[in-house]
Amino acid sequence: MLSECQSPPLQNQTFVNKKTMASVLKLMKSCNCLQPTALPQKGYHPFVIDGVQVGLVRAEFLKYLLQYPDVFQFQSEYVVLNPTLKNYVDRTKKVDAVLRNLRSQNVVSTLSGWRDEDYEVRTSYSSEKLMKMDRSATCIFGICNYGVDINGYTNDPEKGLCIWLQKRSLTKQRWPGKWDNMVGGGLSSGYSILDTAFKEAEEEASIPSEFMLKLKPCGSVSFFFENEQGLFPNTEFVFDLELPSDFVPKNKDGEVEEFELFSAQDVLKKAFTPEFKTTSCPVLIDFLIRHGYIRPDDEPHYPEIVELLHVSLQSMYGKSIDVRSVEKNGATCN
Amino acid sequence: MLSECQSPPLQNQTFVNKKTMASVLKLMKSCNCLQPTALPQKGYHPFVIDGVQVGLVRAEFLKYLLQYPDVFQFQSEYVVLNPTLKNYVDRTKKVDAVLRNLRSQNVVSTLSGWRDEDYEVRTSYSSEKLMKMDRSATCIFGICNYGVDINGYTNDPEKGLCIWLQKRSLTKQRWPGKWDNMVGGGLSSGYSILDTAFKEAEEEASIPSEFMLKLKPCGSVSFFFENEQGLFPNTEFVFDLELPSDFVPKNKDGEVEEFELFSAQDVLKKAFTPEFKTTSCPVLIDFLIRHGYIRPDDEPHYPEIVELLHVSLQSMYGKSIDVRSVEKNGATCN
Repeated sequence: MLSECQSPPLQNQTFVNKKTMASVLKLMKSCNCLQPTALPQKGYHPFVIDGVQVGLVRAEFLKYLLQYPDVFQFQSEYVVLNPTLKNYVDRTKKVDAVLRNLRSQNVVSTLSGWRDEDYEVRTSYSSEKLMKMDRSATCIFGICNYGVDINGYTNDPEKGLCIWLQKRSLTKQRWPGKWDNMVGGGLSSGYSILDTAFKEAEEEASIPSEFMLKLKPCGSVSFFFENEQGLFPNTEFVFDLELPSDFVPKNKDGEVEEFELFSAQDVLKKAFTPEFKTTSCPVLIDFLIRHGYIRPDDEPHYPEIVELLHVSLQSMYGKSIDVRSVEKNGATCN
Repeated sequence: MLSECQSPPLQNQTFVNKKTMASVLKLMKSCNCLQPTALPQKGYHPFVIDGVQVGLVRAEFLKYLLQYPDVFQFQSEYVVLNPTLKNYVDRTKKVDAVLRNLRSQNVVSTLSGWRDEDYEVRTSYSSEKLMKMDRSATCIFGICNYGVDINGYTNDPEKGLCIWLQKRSLTKQRWPGKWDNMVGGGLSSGYSILDTAFKEAEEEASIPSEFMLKLKPCGSVSFFFENEQGLFPNTEFVFDLELPSDFVPKNKDGEVEEFELFSAQDVLKKAFTPEFKTTSCPVLIDFLIRHGYIRPDDEPHYPEIVELLHVSLQSMYGKSIDVRSVEKNGATCN
């Protein structure tokens, strides 16, 4: 029988002090480079499919996309998918051809990380799937990405709560060699949330199926990251998994360099270094908040940090855009 | 030794079905009548102290406030606290006098619920306290309220997770006779978050101090409610407290009609009825999400619900407003 995660005694205020909280706030801000409310804005162009905004394109990508006017059109600051592409299959096929062509020209470095793995394109998680595109390209269009993360932890009789981290393989296309949550993976087209959790737990960490019966869904985190590759509005479905203290995760698929068990204190220290994958920090911070390790007592930035873990990505896109009237009147900021 | 809360078996999908999730979404939307991003807008006037927005005043309240030009001024759609009131004490004193005067005239029904309990006024939880005002009046100015909620639960060998609810006293000024979380209270001027949690746990439910050692901070929820009384941007600091199965909470301060233990299933049903205090639902829904009772599997509105539990109140106000330039050029929407 496994014991559940115990939070540290309430009077123990030494885990997170004011200086640490300032670092947590800074980290959460660095995961939210863009405000989901501030769009459209200078240098960013809404991406519109079938009259609805589904993404955002950075100005630097425009010249490449607009080489293909039968697929992408530019109308009054909006990047519009050619309205003649009326269904999921046609859109997917045409956009895929453009992306593969651009990739073969070696002009958009983002596409050098081609994955042969498709993500769905939709205005929000509950909306109709409008098309799919290679995972590597979604950040060019600012498409919302969804993923699954499993916090693997154990209660050490001496060290207290300990958390398993994986070091990502040095051959990974994104964030190679960085520390990351125990198990994580993007939600590919055709896989459900639970499918993905079980698949990744098996492939990345060889978690036995009997342990997975304790897998506990605990919410989601949403943040809007940006880097030189593109835009990453990202929602991660979060699971906790308590593991027996003698279990050691073992990688199968070659995507993990090593696993290591850290105390809660050490894992937080690690998250503040460049050795940790920035976009995996929100899941870790959320875990430490939910388990009472990051506390509100006398820490004025606590609610701001919690809000930055859950920015409103689901309502960010989806606005109906009448491109014809936009064309006549010019784009207006609402 | 108390056992920790166990989530239902992962394969058990019967607790929350699609219809229930639609109800949860509807409930979370009803707790967020106003979008923190949509302001300023028609019928709502930013409330400005010392050049910074700290709140929002509904048009209907204007005529009362503007009877006191030495305290409130109306400048290009903004309600501005007279800039001659330069410090915390002066602002508090002058505004208090206005509110007591309005209350004595019986013209603003919101003030009939006068509390003789002060809330701090600030642009966000981490910002400087600019003044304080009676709790009953903060909704007239759309001031952010902060509170503490304790989810009291126990693990019944047969029923599984069970949650204690309080029925609010019939004599309470707001939400009399409604079902509510086990323990909750607003953060009054002079009390810390933990002070408030311990005070309310003692006064409302007589929780023994040895049980309170297990009190676990688990995050916060933020939502923006509105009703006929006014505007309620609200952040609640959330605590979980597992209780022994034979413990029964007992009220001391007369603010609670009765306590009752509900199964997780029944407590959610209760939350969908008008018998439950609407603005206490976010804490309950957050609890059921964190404990794996409301799950993401095949439920497309899950991330939207989680985001609606954490809307960005902390960054909503705080914008610097140069009232003189506003006066010259007219108010502009940014």
